[in-house]
Amino acid sequence: MGVALMKVKSKENPSVEEVVEILSEGLSNEAIITLFAHCSVFYDGRAKSELGAGDRVIMIKPDGTFLIHQKEKRVPVNWQPPGSIVSFQIEEGKIKLRSVRRKPKEILEVELLKVYLISYFQAEDYEALNLMGSEAEMADLILQNPSIIEEGFKALQKEKPIKHGIIDIYGVDRDGNIVVLELKRRRADLHAVSQLKRYVDALKEEHGSVRGILVAPSLTSGAEKLLKDLGLEFKKLNPPKREKARKGKQKTLDML
Amino acid sequence: MGVALMKVKSKENPSVEEVVEILSEGLSNEAIITLFAHCSVFYDGRAKSELGAGDRVIMIKPDGTFLIHQKEKRVPVNWQPPGSIVSFQIEEGKIKLRSVRRKPKEILEVELLKVYLISYFQAEDYEALNLMGSEAEMADLILQNPSIIEEGFKALQKEKPIKHGIIDIYGVDRDGNIVVLELKRRRADLHAVSQLKRYVDALKEEHGSVRGILVAPSLTSGAEKLLKDLGLEFKKLNPPKREKARKGKQKTLDML
Repeated sequence: MGVALMKVKSKENPSVEEVVEILSEGLSNEAIITLFAHCSVFYDGRAKSELGAGDRVIMIKPDGTFLIHQKEKRVPVNWQPPGSIVSFQIEEGKIKLRSVRRKPKEILEVELLKVYLISYFQAEDYEALNLMGSEAEMADLILQNPSIIEEGFKALQKEKPIKHGIIDIYGVDRDGNIVVLELKRRRADLHAVSQLKRYVDALKEEHGSVRGILVAPSLTSGAEKLLKDLGLEFKKLNPPKREKARKGKQKTLDML
Repeated sequence: MGVALMKVKSKENPSVEEVVEILSEGLSNEAIITLFAHCSVFYDGRAKSELGAGDRVIMIKPDGTFLIHQKEKRVPVNWQPPGSIVSFQIEEGKIKLRSVRRKPKEILEVELLKVYLISYFQAEDYEALNLMGSEAEMADLILQNPSIIEEGFKALQKEKPIKHGIIDIYGVDRDGNIVVLELKRRRADLHAVSQLKRYVDALKEEHGSVRGILVAPSLTSGAEKLLKDLGLEFKKLNPPKREKARKGKQKTLDML
């Protein structure tokens, strides 16, 4: 009732009551909550796992995301996706956090054996990532210079919708064969090959000969092999770098 | 010189000097560092991206992992993997964090416009995830009951090493054909199909007829299609649930 919304609240070595207070406040105010804790973890869902007691960082987001990080590795050791419901209870003087995902049913339980720091952050963020050097720019580059792909190639359409998706670039080679280009701005993997094959197969139903070319800076070894097995092709191309981004920035980077 | 190692250190609304102090201390003591900050982000590497000013949580791990989280979504909006080198400098009274990965070259720069909380945690963690309901248990189940796969199937060897990897289960069907089983405890994707194909192809070099069967609870649609295209098979099987795990736990879960 009438609690002032603080941008940030934190407490080192909190008592159980203080953890409950800050947790409750953070959850009700849709803040990002973090805890530095000595804890053990139990998970049940698509598999079952246990993690013995150790020091971890726990992050709970207002969208239901629940992350447990160990002191190493980029990915969390356990996690629940957005849409999960978080709750907590006190058992034998210890707080147990619980995150439940409904479909498929997954439960993540964390027993907090010692909380070193609890904090919450009423984050405001209205920005989205502005991506440059993307597939869209690769497509533009090819439309301007079709011979980048091969001599005689004509790019007829960019982002052609078909039943199975959207073809990045649809064109013809010098012999009149239909050519499908799948563009990837990063190293292309099995998914890219599968996507390309899907488009090629769809077009083969109504055209005689269809070539599929995967255009990317590089390929994983698995993708390279599968591409050959399926009779598809690869063309190496890096996404164009924007020269205008941030005056002087490129020069700074070049100094490395 | 002789700074006492504190388990946790935190400061709300720190000055620039305090941020520098806690950052330096956290980095030199191999702690996990977190910041609640209003910041903008610039990334250059496999692509280029910019993220305008907003409130984010930044996590820096002693292994070089660098994560920037927005208030939503499970995955970080920008990140650098283990092995990256973090540094910082002060420009026009503001702190700029920088994480550099050498190969391939990637740079992540974060301009800290306002720091609401900085903290570090000297985490100690000697535990690893203990996974149950795994592929190993699926394999044991099949070895005990080969007919789960099909009548007449004989499982000859578990974890058979070959040039391209390790075959989960190697056996023969009732007609004497070699059978390769690839087990996945979760929904199987393209990688699983590619892995199975690799094993089958390797064995075909010395045996006449080889069948490849992907054993999993389910398949992605892409995997299903590719499996058919490549003439491989699918057998639905869920990883066994352990009944003995944590007395009463299963009952508790069943109450949901």
